[in-house]
Amino acid sequence: MASKLEGIFTPTVVAYDDRGEINEAELRRFLSWLIGQGVHGLYPNGSTGEFTRLTLEERRRIVKITCEEARGRVPVLAGAAEANVKETLAACELYAGYGARAVAIVSPIYYRLSAESVLAYFTEIALHSPIDVTLYNIPMFASPIDVPTIRKLAEYPRVIGIKDSSGDLAFMMRMISAVRPVRPDFSFLTGWEAVLVPMLLIGCDGGTNASSNIIPELTRRLFEWTRAGRIQEAMALQYRILELFDAMLFPFEFPNGFRAAAEMRGFKLGRSRQPLSKTQEADSVALESVLKCILADFGMVEPPAEGCAPRTRNPREDKLSQVVFEVMRTLEERGIL
Amino acid sequence: MASKLEGIFTPTVVAYDDRGEINEAELRRFLSWLIGQGVHGLYPNGSTGEFTRLTLEERRRIVKITCEEARGRVPVLAGAAEANVKETLAACELYAGYGARAVAIVSPIYYRLSAESVLAYFTEIALHSPIDVTLYNIPMFASPIDVPTIRKLAEYPRVIGIKDSSGDLAFMMRMISAVRPVRPDFSFLTGWEAVLVPMLLIGCDGGTNASSNIIPELTRRLFEWTRAGRIQEAMALQYRILELFDAMLFPFEFPNGFRAAAEMRGFKLGRSRQPLSKTQEADSVALESVLKCILADFGMVEPPAEGCAPRTRNPREDKLSQVVFEVMRTLEERGIL
Amino acid sequence: MASKLEGIFTPTVVAYDDRGEINEAELRRFLSWLIGQGVHGLYPNGSTGEFTRLTLEERRRIVKITCEEARGRVPVLAGAAEANVKETLAACELYAGYGARAVAIVSPIYYRLSAESVLAYFTEIALHSPIDVTLYNIPMFASPIDVPTIRKLAEYPRVIGIKDSSGDLAFMMRMISAVRPVRPDFSFLTGWEAVLVPMLLIGCDGGTNASSNIIPELTRRLFEWTRAGRIQEAMALQYRILELFDAMLFPFEFPNGFRAAAEMRGFKLGRSRQPLSKTQEADSVALESVLKCILADFGMVEPPAEGCAPRTRNPREDKLSQVVFEVMRTLEERGIL
Amino acid sequence: MASKLEGIFTPTVVAYDDRGEINEAELRRFLSWLIGQGVHGLYPNGSTGEFTRLTLEERRRIVKITCEEARGRVPVLAGAAEANVKETLAACELYAGYGARAVAIVSPIYYRLSAESVLAYFTEIALHSPIDVTLYNIPMFASPIDVPTIRKLAEYPRVIGIKDSSGDLAFMMRMISAVRPVRPDFSFLTGWEAVLVPMLLIGCDGGTNASSNIIPELTRRLFEWTRAGRIQEAMALQYRILELFDAMLFPFEFPNGFRAAAEMRGFKLGRSRQPLSKTQEADSVALESVLKCILADFGMVEPPAEGCAPRTRNPREDKLSQVVFEVMRTLEERGIL
Repeated sequence: MASKLEGIFTPTVVAYDDRGEINEAELRRFLSWLIGQGVHGLYPNGSTGEFTRLTLEERRRIVKITCEEARGRVPVLAGAAEANVKETLAACELYAGYGARAVAIVSPIYYRLSAESVLAYFTEIALHSPIDVTLYNIPMFASPIDVPTIRKLAEYPRVIGIKDSSGDLAFMMRMISAVRPVRPDFSFLTGWEAVLVPMLLIGCDGGTNASSNIIPELTRRLFEWTRAGRIQEAMALQYRILELFDAMLFPFEFPNGFRAAAEMRGFKLGRSRQPLSKTQEADSVALESVLKCILADFGMVEPPAEGCAPRTRNPREDKLSQVVFEVMRTLEERGIL
Repeated sequence: MASKLEGIFTPTVVAYDDRGEINEAELRRFLSWLIGQGVHGLYPNGSTGEFTRLTLEERRRIVKITCEEARGRVPVLAGAAEANVKETLAACELYAGYGARAVAIVSPIYYRLSAESVLAYFTEIALHSPIDVTLYNIPMFASPIDVPTIRKLAEYPRVIGIKDSSGDLAFMMRMISAVRPVRPDFSFLTGWEAVLVPMLLIGCDGGTNASSNIIPELTRRLFEWTRAGRIQEAMALQYRILELFDAMLFPFEFPNGFRAAAEMRGFKLGRSRQPLSKTQEADSVALESVLKCILADFGMVEPPAEGCAPRTRNPREDKLSQVVFEVMRTLEERGIL
Repeated sequence: MASKLEGIFTPTVVAYDDRGEINEAELRRFLSWLIGQGVHGLYPNGSTGEFTRLTLEERRRIVKITCEEARGRVPVLAGAAEANVKETLAACELYAGYGARAVAIVSPIYYRLSAESVLAYFTEIALHSPIDVTLYNIPMFASPIDVPTIRKLAEYPRVIGIKDSSGDLAFMMRMISAVRPVRPDFSFLTGWEAVLVPMLLIGCDGGTNASSNIIPELTRRLFEWTRAGRIQEAMALQYRILELFDAMLFPFEFPNGFRAAAEMRGFKLGRSRQPLSKTQEADSVALESVLKCILADFGMVEPPAEGCAPRTRNPREDKLSQVVFEVMRTLEERGIL
Repeated sequence: MASKLEGIFTPTVVAYDDRGEINEAELRRFLSWLIGQGVHGLYPNGSTGEFTRLTLEERRRIVKITCEEARGRVPVLAGAAEANVKETLAACELYAGYGARAVAIVSPIYYRLSAESVLAYFTEIALHSPIDVTLYNIPMFASPIDVPTIRKLAEYPRVIGIKDSSGDLAFMMRMISAVRPVRPDFSFLTGWEAVLVPMLLIGCDGGTNASSNIIPELTRRLFEWTRAGRIQEAMALQYRILELFDAMLFPFEFPNGFRAAAEMRGFKLGRSRQPLSKTQEADSVALESVLKCILADFGMVEPPAEGCAPRTRNPREDKLSQVVFEVMRTLEERGIL
């Protein structure tokens, strides 16, 4: 039996060139760097990888590139969701051939399906996939997967885990309660690094965290410290990573903040395929300066030439918090947070 | 200048064969029948047409078939949304060549974008599309398009209308108030036939209504009676169509109820690509019998052999209402209604 | 049998004095003016009447004052919801004694109850109230009342109508379909004047509309024109009232915009009990100037001394729209619109 | 300076007699038992205490009773929210006189206020309260309090803490990040015992947890084990308490499940003031039997005479999970979970 999925799987960003095409050379250089920095696995074609903005051929090419770069050094969890069951199974077949460890399949998108239909969809895949399957629950964007559904799907040996991006600890605990007694090998991965340490403490096996594109070494350290019982140090680091995460997530259209910060680590990722308005582009300059200041505090990059305002957590003095707070308030009002 | 989009545009269902492939012959027969029944236009690759469950090639083929069947008899409004701006523009180009009157482009899906980003996305399309563009707002499933955004997009001549599936009359009135003074040629189409008559009365130019796959002649009559000021008759018919609409919409996973009812008009549409559970299939039999009874009341089909329970609107006596009510209650609880 | 509730019932605002206490003299003067302007009924202790910000004694006093001012000239629909069934029934008893025509009882607030519990709550009231009861559905703020629930409650003779503030036409049509065949005397009132004309056209019996505090004569005219089949004129007026409604609703904390506009008709209503920040107070000045311009267009008040910007509906030129749009966008993002 | 609020504060249920009036003797017996079982504080007039279903006089009486029973043995955190600022301040004054340690004030209910208005409301209270104030954030039921608002309110010495019932760990971390550097004495209490241990690990000072009405000794143990670094044991207990919590929360109308379970510990609490349907009452019998089985596992009560089904976490075999799952699914669909 293959080993359980564990640790930090990076949901990799895509590198584009000046014409908006996949920049293969830069993508390979980036993936290799991630492996060198110690991430436990690679996860192409996730939400961070903008899978819905790529063509079928591009998604395939990215998985192929990723499997080649991984070369067995780390497992690849390949996002394989396509337009329907038949197309998705074709991707599963192909990615098995590329050497992926498993596929990750998001719950049906666009239409909001009932739990019964989500179950029927994944059952078809569980019965016919030639490769291990990880479910992907992201209720913000796709039909939700609930606890009874995950429990029933765990009866299929092909289904080996779930990635959950809800960030809801009690929900994760309910899934673990329902599944672990009957499937101790089942893997629970959180997509919400804002609470990675608490998620590991309640029993998660790891995370698929967009931040590990930017700070792979620290995300891994968070995992290791928590596993080693160094809770206090882990929690202190968790708070600092939360600050970075919020600064990448809220003021930008996802995943642009993560892409901008990853560029500061020395990669040329190009522009996302979602166009920006002039205002958004102007805002980005200021926001990226904030990101650079946080990364500079981690010692990851040089601080910006113009210097960094102190981050006092005092809303009257602290421009950084204000920007983030402003956006968070909007998102909280929207009910997304 | 091309004429304004007006009347009932049918967001056509797809005909599949036994292997789940597009059944071209039956699709052509169905499209021809719709035209014969008097719909004002055809709208392939909408939500009713399950565009997200088709491949790129299938979406193209369906538009080609539709344009060929229309043969200039009715205008074709072709759903053209693809993975990104570049791919979408390529579809626009192609569909212009097929002879489509205009394209309909849904707001970006999956990620929930800010108003600013929705504007940036459609601006790119408005600037570069070789064919007239209709915006498609369906906040239940895709990033919402708000009033200021529609107002700004109306400044581009290529943007000639909006299809709105929110069903919110006040929102439609706000759009009309904001746009019509500066763009009298701009077309407002409602995707929510539950309130088609009121929408026409507040000034909508027509509808893109899934029910017109099943009762094209009646949907058209609703339009004509309202235009002719026969409000009372229109409203009486509206109430009966609401009953049918609810019975197709709520108890089924969309668009299965509409597909089942369209089959009763004499077409073989096959199974949708979203798999069903055994329970769902069993339920369908009962639900389809209810649909048949409503259609029989319209004189459209023979009543089922086992007869029809009277629909008294008395919940203690009326099985039909109970089924629909039960599902409606769930949906209301979900906040979808 | 008492007659059916029909027409425009004003959900009256409260007049406060400088110390924040009820200003009885001014309230009486205001109520009398409303009756003189032709509203069909008065509805104290609604959401516009800030019932949750009043004490039990104040709510009672307001109903007493209202019944006295009405003096049988118009019916009074008295908001009677209290902390629990027993307290609510005590209010029913009292308001019957004051001469109210009926009470209006909002669905339980704070806790979001299931449909089953909402039914149980209203059943207790239906069985024991000494006065006719109107249900009040406002899902934005209180536990929602769904169609099966209203259908079951319609079997109690004491329940004579529903006020619905969802603004959802299809929902209203479903209620009417379910109830009217068995209870032709049952009254359907809409609380959403943005769509009052369409609501009347689908069969509503009237409205309880906050705007009728400000433009009672026009709200009544809307009702009469629609009843008389003067649809075009009614619809033109409806669009103008929508502009006013939006300008009172969105930029202000409810019901402050309505209170500010009612003051422009010549009444001293004082400050609401919900405190405002300095920023909010500063904003109010600008917003009230906008309100005054709209009311001046109706010929209801003098335009402000500094004049009115033209309302072009062109977002680049039109400050008014921008303010309203900005807030509407936020509310749409919140999912409230 | 008074000491920081820490530990488990029980949001106490109300004891009613057969006529639905407050059963003072039984309430006193219950409060005394809670103190004897080791809870760190008492919190009357919370959501568990059904404060919106009580009259003003009843709320006052309950605080008086609670302060008397506490007799300085444990601090009392008294729910003091009334209809408006003036009434709330009057309650603050009164409860200070009763000897309460602090008051807890829920964000304004019914109307959903903007962040600006929530801030204005609490600012008035912060400036004028004669007693320390704890904010109460429960976005499910009341206007949400966001991070910038809590940060600004923390500048008032009278505001000494927040109770948050969102259950969102990242939100709690953001509050702690924003406030603790400037107010180390500020107290963060979680109302969501499903994740009490993780909340304590990220730095919460304690909890106000409805479950502590039923298992005060275990809730306290959870707190102490976590504080003592016995994470593994704490987490094992946390999972068992989650099972109980879910069984009390989801199948019942809140707080009925908690009330039923507290009765099993030997108290006569009577019926809640929210009426139940016959179906709900019948369901309660089965659901209470499930609760008894869980409590019996803790050794807290005798198992039911008819015995307990094994709770295997296998949905095919496990009736208990099914009931809970069914309700959870509905709530997840509603977006409440």
